[in-house]
Amino acid sequence: MICTPLVGATPEQLGTELDMVLPKQPDMLEWRVDFFHGIANSAEVVRMAQSIKAAAGGIPILFTRRSTREGGEPIGMSEDQVVAMYEAVCHAKCVDLIDFEMSNDADHIAHLRSISRAHGIGLVLSFHHFSATPSQQELVARFELAQQLGADVAKIAVMPQRLDDVLTLLSATLQASTTLAIPVVSMSMGPYGSLTRLFGFAFGSALSFAVGANSSAPGQVPIEDLNTVLAIVNKSMG
Amino acid sequence: MICTPLVGATPEQLGTELDMVLPKQPDMLEWRVDFFHGIANSAEVVRMAQSIKAAAGGIPILFTRRSTREGGEPIGMSEDQVVAMYEAVCHAKCVDLIDFEMSNDADHIAHLRSISRAHGIGLVLSFHHFSATPSQQELVARFELAQQLGADVAKIAVMPQRLDDVLTLLSATLQASTTLAIPVVSMSMGPYGSLTRLFGFAFGSALSFAVGANSSAPGQVPIEDLNTVLAIVNKSMG
Repeated sequence: MICTPLVGATPEQLGTELDMVLPKQPDMLEWRVDFFHGIANSAEVVRMAQSIKAAAGGIPILFTRRSTREGGEPIGMSEDQVVAMYEAVCHAKCVDLIDFEMSNDADHIAHLRSISRAHGIGLVLSFHHFSATPSQQELVARFELAQQLGADVAKIAVMPQRLDDVLTLLSATLQASTTLAIPVVSMSMGPYGSLTRLFGFAFGSALSFAVGANSSAPGQVPIEDLNTVLAIVNKSMG
Repeated sequence: MICTPLVGATPEQLGTELDMVLPKQPDMLEWRVDFFHGIANSAEVVRMAQSIKAAAGGIPILFTRRSTREGGEPIGMSEDQVVAMYEAVCHAKCVDLIDFEMSNDADHIAHLRSISRAHGIGLVLSFHHFSATPSQQELVARFELAQQLGADVAKIAVMPQRLDDVLTLLSATLQASTTLAIPVVSMSMGPYGSLTRLFGFAFGSALSFAVGANSSAPGQVPIEDLNTVLAIVNKSMG
């Protein structure tokens, strides 16, 4: 499955992005709301999400506020305000999944787990490290923590410092994907990590983020290239 | 670098293969002489190798007798006769590299190392396991053994029983490629292993075997597919 990020700052920019992205037929769209200038107004966020959902024609929407701590944009909101925004989006049922970082306050995670479940919205609990790759054991423990916290999907994105780290991430993904009950999504970032965006699915990652119009993280490849490699790998693995 | 095998049984079949393979511009051709019906006649083998070299227009030729023990065809020759054939080929300087299995008799390896060096021909010392993947430590020890035995290139091909074995092969390749003085070539075979044929180069494997006309081992991908993936991975890794 391929997910394409939307990173527009305004409704106009998001509209242009959708025009570029939708013909490329991604399996999922991630709206990175931390790029959106209207983020502080929950009603505006809900309207925008509804507009994206209407345009997407059935493609599931993943709603994500990435914190600056984990690679996102500064938004000048308190965590309580962020949780209230997620709540408003869940109440409006204008997205299909939400991504929330597992390093957030435990009460906030439990609250959004409860709210999202009540509205039939999936919860992705995520962990990002932009400068290093933890050990295989630590990565597997993070995947397990996401499941313990009630996630429907566990997501980990880390930065390799050397090629060996790429193999560590793939080993952890393979282990977690065969032992956990929920789907796992993983990637190494940056140039080395682009290998995992292309081949990680073969080791159990359920989703790869690829560029439709604009990139949201280092090492993302164009959706056309990912489709080409996926087709060749699937044919080769028979 | 991409190497394409030639597996014809007769000069006519090899000619047809060359006609199919050469337009695809591989970086190397491997003549698997164990498929050749004329193998018992060294003069005929030398003539055929000269004919391949003439047709190849500068593409290096790797000359390989694969034993039945390591996945090759039955040839009904003693090991002394096989060594004499390799010697004749070296004397005629009709190939650029020879592949000899490191499980062969130590005296035979030392002899062919000496003969090939005297004639400016490279020596690939190889190890194949068609049913399993040894541990990372054992694989690295095999690569090191090839270097100790005087190889110009160390080659290992193994069969994965599970996806984890693919990562073991890649880890061993990465380790050996960064610690040895000679190039290493590695692959996992079969469907899982095709992953290593497509992106093992990123982890230090100097050569991948791809199909130009006919396959010589399980999991080989068409040269066109390998070229496509190589271009995308190289672009993605920037």
